[in-house]
Amino acid sequence: MKPQFDLSLYLVLDPDLCGGAQGMIDTARAAAANGATMVQLRAPNWKKRQWLETATVLKAVLAPLGVPLIINDQIDVALAMQADGVHIGQADLPPDAARRLLGAGRIIGLSASNAAQLADAPLGLIDYLGVGPVHPTGTKADASPVIGLDLFGDLMAAKPLPVVAIGGIKAGNAAPVIAAGADGVAVVSAICGQPDIPTATRALRREIDGARA
Amino acid sequence: MKPQFDLSLYLVLDPDLCGGAQGMIDTARAAAANGATMVQLRAPNWKKRQWLETATVLKAVLAPLGVPLIINDQIDVALAMQADGVHIGQADLPPDAARRLLGAGRIIGLSASNAAQLADAPLGLIDYLGVGPVHPTGTKADASPVIGLDLFGDLMAAKPLPVVAIGGIKAGNAAPVIAAGADGVAVVSAICGQPDIPTATRALRREIDGARA
Repeated sequence: MKPQFDLSLYLVLDPDLCGGAQGMIDTARAAAANGATMVQLRAPNWKKRQWLETATVLKAVLAPLGVPLIINDQIDVALAMQADGVHIGQADLPPDAARRLLGAGRIIGLSASNAAQLADAPLGLIDYLGVGPVHPTGTKADASPVIGLDLFGDLMAAKPLPVVAIGGIKAGNAAPVIAAGADGVAVVSAICGQPDIPTATRALRREIDGARA
Repeated sequence: MKPQFDLSLYLVLDPDLCGGAQGMIDTARAAAANGATMVQLRAPNWKKRQWLETATVLKAVLAPLGVPLIINDQIDVALAMQADGVHIGQADLPPDAARRLLGAGRIIGLSASNAAQLADAPLGLIDYLGVGPVHPTGTKADASPVIGLDLFGDLMAAKPLPVVAIGGIKAGNAAPVIAAGADGVAVVSAICGQPDIPTATRALRREIDGARA
């Protein structure tokens, strides 16, 4: 059975911004206890043994809180520690291969950065889209061109699947993204590295919920 | 059924030294037709879509020649294109996870760089060991300390599994490695980037076969 998932406040863990593996685990625990609804592990420079060890701990921390753990790109790691799902980019293993390897019971998210990639999204194979960067971001070195809020709203008018918006989203600019049609927002630096993770998370979550009311 | 394999002359493809994906494919074809017995794809900086596309072509080129294709580290790629096996290092997914994901029917090789790692090799889970670097090498940035031929011979006296030697091996120094007890030699730059791949491969293979005679 595929786990239920809620894209509202989707934390992407970054080893540099979160203070390494232990910082990521502590951040994920505090965020999940204060309103984060999903957590993704993303560490493109890590070797896979580090991936496996950290993901295993994260799963043990998040499962009791009902927060799914999503593995970025590394489907073998996700299979080895039975993650709740994976998130793949346009240059990662393609959705059909990912679904074949993972089976029907896991969440698959796919990044899309423009109208063509949204239109090409293989609806039967994936569960949600990550669309961005909505705003400029310093977190991802190889990010695509910025979409901007106006075009993002246009894209949402024809969204084929649930969408989590990503890229430069923080307290203060999350509400307009939800109002434009996103099902949730993904953040890195708005939570990772913040001095008070619970407060930062609750503020974001309040803004997101408020934008829907 | 696990494919038969012969470690005698094990080509490790490197995108920089081989001239990119097409260069790797051309090199693998020429080497496999002239005495290379196994081919490994190793491209630590590639995204997985590139891995999948190149590995799929390599498999189609090598299978008719009876030469197994081994995927370095990326078990998800190996599963997606049904490679003959994988090669993992000490910081990659551990052998038990690799075997669980791959099943009994695929080859698994493990890198070992010292006596402790050889002694720890999980015999029931893996099929061969890659031991090195025997000599200094410029090909692998994160290589372990050089073993040297004398210590390599000592290690071979108690080898628990078939061993392919790696690290700075080329025509002229392959025979002593075989004489010291290796079942084969792995090479990168001794084939990749050589002006005449068939001749370079045949010379190496002749030296290896001669060292056993």
